[in-house]
Amino acid sequence: MAVEIPAIIRPSRLRSRGGLLGECLAEFLGTFVLISFGCGVVAMAVAALPGSGRAATPTTIFLASGDWLLVAWGWAFAVAFGVYVGGGVSGAHLNPAVTLAMAVRRGFSWAKVLPYWFSQVVGALTGAAVVYLVYHDAIHAYDRVAPGPKVNGHTNATFSIFATFPAAYYHGGYWGPLVDQIVGTAFLLMLIAAVLDVRNQAVQANLGPLVVGLVVAAVGMSYGANAGYAINPARDFGPRLFTYAAGWSSLAFPGSVAGSYSSYWWIPIVGPLIGGVVGILVYDLFVGDVLLVRAELAEVPEPGRATAVRTADKG
Amino acid sequence: MAVEIPAIIRPSRLRSRGGLLGECLAEFLGTFVLISFGCGVVAMAVAALPGSGRAATPTTIFLASGDWLLVAWGWAFAVAFGVYVGGGVSGAHLNPAVTLAMAVRRGFSWAKVLPYWFSQVVGALTGAAVVYLVYHDAIHAYDRVAPGPKVNGHTNATFSIFATFPAAYYHGGYWGPLVDQIVGTAFLLMLIAAVLDVRNQAVQANLGPLVVGLVVAAVGMSYGANAGYAINPARDFGPRLFTYAAGWSSLAFPGSVAGSYSSYWWIPIVGPLIGGVVGILVYDLFVGDVLLVRAELAEVPEPGRATAVRTADKG
Amino acid sequence: MAVEIPAIIRPSRLRSRGGLLGECLAEFLGTFVLISFGCGVVAMAVAALPGSGRAATPTTIFLASGDWLLVAWGWAFAVAFGVYVGGGVSGAHLNPAVTLAMAVRRGFSWAKVLPYWFSQVVGALTGAAVVYLVYHDAIHAYDRVAPGPKVNGHTNATFSIFATFPAAYYHGGYWGPLVDQIVGTAFLLMLIAAVLDVRNQAVQANLGPLVVGLVVAAVGMSYGANAGYAINPARDFGPRLFTYAAGWSSLAFPGSVAGSYSSYWWIPIVGPLIGGVVGILVYDLFVGDVLLVRAELAEVPEPGRATAVRTADKG
Amino acid sequence: MAVEIPAIIRPSRLRSRGGLLGECLAEFLGTFVLISFGCGVVAMAVAALPGSGRAATPTTIFLASGDWLLVAWGWAFAVAFGVYVGGGVSGAHLNPAVTLAMAVRRGFSWAKVLPYWFSQVVGALTGAAVVYLVYHDAIHAYDRVAPGPKVNGHTNATFSIFATFPAAYYHGGYWGPLVDQIVGTAFLLMLIAAVLDVRNQAVQANLGPLVVGLVVAAVGMSYGANAGYAINPARDFGPRLFTYAAGWSSLAFPGSVAGSYSSYWWIPIVGPLIGGVVGILVYDLFVGDVLLVRAELAEVPEPGRATAVRTADKG
Repeated sequence: MAVEIPAIIRPSRLRSRGGLLGECLAEFLGTFVLISFGCGVVAMAVAALPGSGRAATPTTIFLASGDWLLVAWGWAFAVAFGVYVGGGVSGAHLNPAVTLAMAVRRGFSWAKVLPYWFSQVVGALTGAAVVYLVYHDAIHAYDRVAPGPKVNGHTNATFSIFATFPAAYYHGGYWGPLVDQIVGTAFLLMLIAAVLDVRNQAVQANLGPLVVGLVVAAVGMSYGANAGYAINPARDFGPRLFTYAAGWSSLAFPGSVAGSYSSYWWIPIVGPLIGGVVGILVYDLFVGDVLLVRAELAEVPEPGRATAVRTADKG
Repeated sequence: MAVEIPAIIRPSRLRSRGGLLGECLAEFLGTFVLISFGCGVVAMAVAALPGSGRAATPTTIFLASGDWLLVAWGWAFAVAFGVYVGGGVSGAHLNPAVTLAMAVRRGFSWAKVLPYWFSQVVGALTGAAVVYLVYHDAIHAYDRVAPGPKVNGHTNATFSIFATFPAAYYHGGYWGPLVDQIVGTAFLLMLIAAVLDVRNQAVQANLGPLVVGLVVAAVGMSYGANAGYAINPARDFGPRLFTYAAGWSSLAFPGSVAGSYSSYWWIPIVGPLIGGVVGILVYDLFVGDVLLVRAELAEVPEPGRATAVRTADKG
Repeated sequence: MAVEIPAIIRPSRLRSRGGLLGECLAEFLGTFVLISFGCGVVAMAVAALPGSGRAATPTTIFLASGDWLLVAWGWAFAVAFGVYVGGGVSGAHLNPAVTLAMAVRRGFSWAKVLPYWFSQVVGALTGAAVVYLVYHDAIHAYDRVAPGPKVNGHTNATFSIFATFPAAYYHGGYWGPLVDQIVGTAFLLMLIAAVLDVRNQAVQANLGPLVVGLVVAAVGMSYGANAGYAINPARDFGPRLFTYAAGWSSLAFPGSVAGSYSSYWWIPIVGPLIGGVVGILVYDLFVGDVLLVRAELAEVPEPGRATAVRTADKG
Repeated sequence: MAVEIPAIIRPSRLRSRGGLLGECLAEFLGTFVLISFGCGVVAMAVAALPGSGRAATPTTIFLASGDWLLVAWGWAFAVAFGVYVGGGVSGAHLNPAVTLAMAVRRGFSWAKVLPYWFSQVVGALTGAAVVYLVYHDAIHAYDRVAPGPKVNGHTNATFSIFATFPAAYYHGGYWGPLVDQIVGTAFLLMLIAAVLDVRNQAVQANLGPLVVGLVVAAVGMSYGANAGYAINPARDFGPRLFTYAAGWSSLAFPGSVAGSYSSYWWIPIVGPLIGGVVGILVYDLFVGDVLLVRAELAEVPEPGRATAVRTADKG
């Protein structure tokens, strides 16, 4: 017997969800999932697992390779399932750097950029709040017994659950972490462009979100320890806002790091925005445009054509 | 030369398997596989691997990040293959929280809820018995030499092979673990709803069971250490019944935890049942209903429609 | 310009490869790949990685959870790629227990069982020889400095690279490891039956071999430490023959284990052969036959049919 | 509203990219990605993670099993995404040994072999430069405090980030590492041939690049520690050139290893080139040719045919 399960939302409100509002809600929920799982796995490695925090010092918190694998897989699945949740509605950028790069080179509407960015930051902030809600006891138990300097009773270690800061070997220089964020995000967009390019070998069977998650695993495994691989302004800024409000204070804003950085908060915003555009341009320059012109020549095989133009729906 | 391999079951009995009985058998076998592999991997980490138990204290048993990865992957495959085994017949809920959420929001027949729940609990109990059968020697060797308090000669560590209890930093509060179970199961159902939603990016090529296993890996990596991520009433209650009968006594029922909890057994039942419904409602509210109304508008593009109704087969 | 790349084999010999000979060669190469990678990863964990062997004692060789993950993933890929290599020709059983179960319940020709078994054992033996060739220096360096009793200068640790023996907590009882092998192989066949059953959710896109590899990862993670999860008579017997010839002597045959077992070699042969048949029968009894009768009823929807017969090509 | 996104490259130059130039650019970018991620993950394990380098001695640098898993997964994703980036244009060999084997047995044009090789080496060298750019601070911080002999202030440990050298137990013999490279690359090509063979079970849904990455994970897990599994002349030679220029001097060329090898640089070039051809020949001999003749017989079922010829486009 067929039954009908009505939508939760009242019909009168449903139509408004068809457009930008629905897309922003999807970006919100996707980024919420991303941060809830991503910051969650760091909470596990830093504060909740019985063996955690064993190598803590004021500036280098954890992590041997075994721990790093847990973090890298955790963020990979965070991304994959964030994309599965929001992808069908909004494309699941979940990352202002992705949104910007898509606007620059894939015809994503510039008018939607700010609404997407806003939804992503709010989703990330809300995800951080859930992580704090669930790991409240573990975090406070850790901070109570941890050695070293504290701000409002909080350590840099528990701050690292939510947002990023550079490794001790940078000694306060800004170029190092900035280059790190640019390179990491450039690779992120270069690889996303590749696995989504239907003229290349775009992943099928709706496994694209999983493979995008593995892209982030790759960046984390190979470019993660310099500065925590934010590679996403919303991923860092949203939880940073939350920790600022929740008591981590100057560790969050301006983002001071004991003895070296006085104001770090802007690096994981500026670096990824630059890097993402660089990455998609490099992909198009070396591979994407070649596939574009090949496809055009295959369609209209007359000499002289080869204007190579992508057509995108700017809605 | 073509040969015929007859079914094992007598033809006269076969027809009865076409309906609810067959579905209950599939739920039984799927949950049996889930628990046989899931509790099996904890038996490995706690008692069978030569390096196991090295960090054991009365309340924190094992686990550094490396161990946790083993546990998280093991449970992921346990879920994936449980779903592969039972999915074609019963949909392979393997979890009363999934069954309840499907009844609330996906038109799963309310009349089948109790039979499914019963089959899941019996399957889980039987799986725990197989783990005990296979790891009997390892468990007893561990309990014999382990330090700390014991109940009937059994430690909390070997109890943790079968069922869950909260981390030491909870100090006896019930809200902490309850919130943990609600949040964990809410994410479980939110993500299952996403990867199965054919209007979203539902996984194809029959890889859905594997990706559902990865959902559980994600929950385990990011929300596992607070209270052992039961996120499934049958997963905890079935093996808990077995351990109660097999001698773990008060550690199982009422589920006392040294010095803090006197009665913990109901948390991994109540929490997941609430959380699952919350999770699927959140998904529908933010994403699922939007996709529903979009699909309706695409079919009948006249203004005023948008009633957004799911049609499900209530059989 | 089209070019023709001729086959390596002379045309006059090629036709003979179309039948059983070609299938046996494929079983040989597939099992060769399986053992070359499988025993290879144990050689890594035991003797080649700089940190290996650090927990060695005469009977418990290595392995904390981190090491075990390496071993479990390594064997998983060993199986997956063994199946990719041989699958298109022979079905890639690579395991006498699989061949037997397929003969009992899937119409695999009984006449081919012995030729398959023979090819599998020879392939496994050859794979062990390659592992010895490549890790010769690492193995001898390890044995030279390892503590504890030795046979012909070889330790039980380096024997474990090639073949299996039971955990120390079994104290010489045969039922424990035998039950372990029966249960492990029963799960192996139960899950293989599930992921290959086209009436269930058979994996598509030619990813079946990868998922079968993950089945073995699951068995290794959840049922691996009791007795080394041979779950395959050829996997144990072939390399055991090699080590016997190469100097491990009584450690290989009759398979003595210091202070407990005097003759262990037959356990990883008898256990898997029994377990495999048990596993496929359980799958058919609980799930497979239900899907069979459902499919028949869907085809010929008249009451009274439901004879439920599998038709297999017995060639 | 549809918008047009023009290619970055000027139309007049685009057409020239359709042929060999475009393929070489794709090989360059793919190998660049391969090395940027591959050497990046070793930089993580050796120098960037806080727990890294803890087991460093002059000749054995790191790595317990947990670290090795990080390295193996990192290189697997490096390969997978290198192939995703370049595959649609050039086939993404990314490895001179693959290019040679494809020319010998798959009709790849001999005229393209040297241009491909050159692009691969330049891509690898550029990738190494990016790793140095990003990990400059970590590398110098490590070398400053590391014990043992140094060349120009650099340790063998930081050299290992970029290129390979044999394990300490080889004591200076060349046959050991040479056999290791031949066997490792033979398996690489044997398995690549299998997962790409459309007459066998070629991976579909554009997941081939991911599975090829897992092939390299398998080789790394099972055959990685003897000599660092270069199994790719460009992977070793390109970064080696870079380190020579960047100050590692004799550690790079002629590739001296403290107290044992005086000139090691040619081993990871000669070994893989031999091994790759061996591997594809073994595959064709045991499996590939059988599938070829089967396919021909299926097409033209008349006795006496079976000439078994592959037709390849030699462009």
